[in-house]
Amino acid sequence: MCGEVSPAALGSEVQISGWVQAVRMDKFIILRDRTGLCQVNVSDEEHKDITKLSNESVVTLVGKVVMRPEGQENPSMGESGKVEIELRQVLDVSEAADQLPIQQNHHILPKEEIRMQYRYLDLRRKHLQDIMKFRSDFVMKMREFLTSSGFLDIETPTLFRRTPGGAKEFIVPTRIQDRYYSLVQSPQQFKQLLMVGGLDRYFQIARCYRDEGGKPDRQPEFTQVDIEMSFADRETILELTEQLIASAWPHQLNIPLPRLKYQEVMQKYGSDKPDLRYDNEIQLVTECFKASNFPILDNNLGTNDNIAGLIMFESNDKNNSKLVKKVGEESKKSLKDHTEYYSSAELKIISPVVVKDGQIVNNAVLKKCAPAVKEALEAKLSCADGIGFLVFGPQDFVMPVLGKQRTLLAKDIYKDLEQRDQKMFWVIDFPMFLYEEGVLESAHHPFTAPHPEDYHLLRINPLKCRSLHYDLVLNGQEIGGGSVRIHNSADQKYVLQEILGADISELSHLIQALEMGCPPHAGIALGLDRLIAILTGANSIRDVIAFPKSAEGKDLMAGAPAQITDQQKEMYFIKS
Amino acid sequence: MCGEVSPAALGSEVQISGWVQAVRMDKFIILRDRTGLCQVNVSDEEHKDITKLSNESVVTLVGKVVMRPEGQENPSMGESGKVEIELRQVLDVSEAADQLPIQQNHHILPKEEIRMQYRYLDLRRKHLQDIMKFRSDFVMKMREFLTSSGFLDIETPTLFRRTPGGAKEFIVPTRIQDRYYSLVQSPQQFKQLLMVGGLDRYFQIARCYRDEGGKPDRQPEFTQVDIEMSFADRETILELTEQLIASAWPHQLNIPLPRLKYQEVMQKYGSDKPDLRYDNEIQLVTECFKASNFPILDNNLGTNDNIAGLIMFESNDKNNSKLVKKVGEESKKSLKDHTEYYSSAELKIISPVVVKDGQIVNNAVLKKCAPAVKEALEAKLSCADGIGFLVFGPQDFVMPVLGKQRTLLAKDIYKDLEQRDQKMFWVIDFPMFLYEEGVLESAHHPFTAPHPEDYHLLRINPLKCRSLHYDLVLNGQEIGGGSVRIHNSADQKYVLQEILGADISELSHLIQALEMGCPPHAGIALGLDRLIAILTGANSIRDVIAFPKSAEGKDLMAGAPAQITDQQKEMYFIKS
Repeated sequence: MCGEVSPAALGSEVQISGWVQAVRMDKFIILRDRTGLCQVNVSDEEHKDITKLSNESVVTLVGKVVMRPEGQENPSMGESGKVEIELRQVLDVSEAADQLPIQQNHHILPKEEIRMQYRYLDLRRKHLQDIMKFRSDFVMKMREFLTSSGFLDIETPTLFRRTPGGAKEFIVPTRIQDRYYSLVQSPQQFKQLLMVGGLDRYFQIARCYRDEGGKPDRQPEFTQVDIEMSFADRETILELTEQLIASAWPHQLNIPLPRLKYQEVMQKYGSDKPDLRYDNEIQLVTECFKASNFPILDNNLGTNDNIAGLIMFESNDKNNSKLVKKVGEESKKSLKDHTEYYSSAELKIISPVVVKDGQIVNNAVLKKCAPAVKEALEAKLSCADGIGFLVFGPQDFVMPVLGKQRTLLAKDIYKDLEQRDQKMFWVIDFPMFLYEEGVLESAHHPFTAPHPEDYHLLRINPLKCRSLHYDLVLNGQEIGGGSVRIHNSADQKYVLQEILGADISELSHLIQALEMGCPPHAGIALGLDRLIAILTGANSIRDVIAFPKSAEGKDLMAGAPAQITDQQKEMYFIKS
Repeated sequence: MCGEVSPAALGSEVQISGWVQAVRMDKFIILRDRTGLCQVNVSDEEHKDITKLSNESVVTLVGKVVMRPEGQENPSMGESGKVEIELRQVLDVSEAADQLPIQQNHHILPKEEIRMQYRYLDLRRKHLQDIMKFRSDFVMKMREFLTSSGFLDIETPTLFRRTPGGAKEFIVPTRIQDRYYSLVQSPQQFKQLLMVGGLDRYFQIARCYRDEGGKPDRQPEFTQVDIEMSFADRETILELTEQLIASAWPHQLNIPLPRLKYQEVMQKYGSDKPDLRYDNEIQLVTECFKASNFPILDNNLGTNDNIAGLIMFESNDKNNSKLVKKVGEESKKSLKDHTEYYSSAELKIISPVVVKDGQIVNNAVLKKCAPAVKEALEAKLSCADGIGFLVFGPQDFVMPVLGKQRTLLAKDIYKDLEQRDQKMFWVIDFPMFLYEEGVLESAHHPFTAPHPEDYHLLRINPLKCRSLHYDLVLNGQEIGGGSVRIHNSADQKYVLQEILGADISELSHLIQALEMGCPPHAGIALGLDRLIAILTGANSIRDVIAFPKSAEGKDLMAGAPAQITDQQKEMYFIKS
């Protein structure tokens, strides 16, 4: 291959194929394939035509490997830059049109629409080819680890039935009137049923489907590394996963990874997936506002869970004020759901903070407070110049807002973020349930087992009951999650029916299975696309998928989704 | 694990989990997991309750490994049959209901509907567990071979757009009105585009979808081992595939495999996927019927491609007449399409043949012919007692009918068929196009390249043009197929538009890609489910799939396909 031609082959005749990267001085063809570049010397007049080929044409040639004349080596090509190939014979030519929409020898990338429309040209870029190779290697190493640990690679169906609450499931009409498959969001039910079936160690690199209706950086189909194990407790799965990841990790990975409690990360970072490449903990400053003389604070702080929180970043940029304004707007936008939900709260203030020479300047809230408040706050600052936010309101509002602002500020302030050491850790001891719009919902999914220390709370105070769910977090992104599962049919029925109010007829097969000899079991799923994107420093998960869809779920290359024929609609008993 | 307890662990305390296979004499529990069985001795009164558990309950126990008393060893259990575990502690119990619908210690299998409804119980059978392990191992060996040969494992989308002639494609409505994804029947377009993209060696164990509308032994989703390679010719792919299969094959595989030509297998066996575990070639006996004095034969044989063919099997069974009648009916039924298509042919006779002591007895056609015909035919018989068929008509009718009868007769007559040596070989030199209901259609798919020896025929007599398609046949079943692809846009356009009359707007992205520097390339796809079924001696591909669907495409366990909500229909702009 092109990158493999070297002085070791000196004097021998080789057959070589590749894309014309460039033609120089009507005499030298730079040929490219996945392995690299090599130079072909066309001295023979007979073959001169080949130097007229447009870039990106494909040729197969025979020639003799010779040393380049002294001074003409190209060290940037590596070994193949020391030699060139004297053309003897042209075996095959597949000409490319002139002026392709993406040229490999241009340094500026076309915009993403063009790249997606001509994805086959975009894929010729070394960066994407290296990612595809990295992904293939990474997955293979994981497979090697899992199979050698006694796990069986078992394929499960993607055409399944709707599940309770399956609002994000794509549907697939069938030839039976008014009956639809649903595309699975994950193999969750199947992998649990495999455990009931005695196939005690399962894994699958599984294609999953979720109709997010066009969220950026989501794909309608995605891939997860899916694992389930019988007779395993939480620690077994955490250790297994750590070893699995370490086996494929491109660098040394220090395991065991830290295990942080949900309660702790929420309090320190306002997020269940904080980015720990920087510290910047949230400070609770409710005490500073005692007797503030600002009525809305004095009337509310300390009641109904209302608190005051502060997040600060050191920064002496001249644009601090602009930045804090921009982040304030971004965080409001991204927290729209939260702010709407809490619109009923009496207290709800987000106040940007700019610190200069140890002084908080121009703060709208502090202006209305007694001077002692400002002094008390300033005593808590860890930097002389910086920006941040003060947030007041119910704890469930304040902490996520500060958590979001923490992430946004770090992105703007820490320019070296992507060069910092990766930070991976577990979050454990999640709550089993959360209040969502006034009703209890599973914090993760309804098959999650309660924490044994809180089992007594399941039936009397489920909101206080922790679960055996765990999340794996890398650089502030959730890259995996799993749990010990409920394996007792009475508990499973109680959770589904009494707590969540679900229609259990849609899950009767699973509940029945739990009554037929179900082992305790636990598992995990890792989001492969995101994991690879982080590891390869890709800008988007679209860069780690060979043929991604746009944010609107469109394939811009072939034009999917598309219209179908009337016959197809008739066959599937549907009308548009 | 249960099957791993052995005298090597003598005296040590072990923790063991498994399913209660049986309880004997209120004292011995036989515990089972995927690895085997072991016996637990419950002598302590304190734990007697555990012997009351119903079969298939799951327990986790601690006990001490001791030798069984002399004479009580169970050699059928292997090493674990030499010892037993003295129960010390019961750690966990998950009780099973009484009288499960599938009991592991019963020897008669329930009917398939029950097995599919309670698939998680059926999966506890050793036979199915062994198949799942075999499949996992087999696929892993293939992956090892391919990755070590420089192939990249690249995932391609399953949500795509409709393709020309995509009548068997499932559709997936989207949130864009009247726009549908189609589920891919194979990654064909994507893998060719990867070649254009310079990712020159691709493989994927790919999930594919085809709506066959309830054909037995087909599944709406299935798996293929999908491979594509740039700068490869036919022989490269045949050799690569042979090495790939040999690397995973459970026994010694003699490669290279035979390469048979389409023309040859059609003439000898009346099928492009003949079963060569037996010889039984078709004989052309048109000559025997010269001057038969039977007008319909004398008027037609020798004209319009009309021929007479004979297939014979040695058999001295008393039920020969019954068998030949049965096979005659089966073959007629399975060839309904053929016989209807040829209903316009003047000559079309299928005549069962029974041979006793070298004489053809009671043959309806021969009765109407001159005696010399019977004598001439009998001179051609290779057995004294046997059965078979005489078929008269156009060659395209006679050969497939005889081929079908050859397969059906062998199934009834060769009782040792499944014990015979497996026969795998390539069929090459297929025609590019076939007449189907009066129009030219691709014999395989429209991306198949013409045979270089016939390239001049492509534009003047396409029906005579052979292609570079190849099929891999094992024991009379097609287990794979592929081809060298067209990589020239003018040829691709000509085939699609001029020969097949397709709407090329639906493939414009592919044609355009061929104009942007497309390397010559070739590939193959192997049907994994069928291959595993043959290798494991499974009765059906349903036995090699963890959660198969019924012949009607139903998941009998969870009840898929199912009704969906009105909100879902609204969201996808569809009405039933």
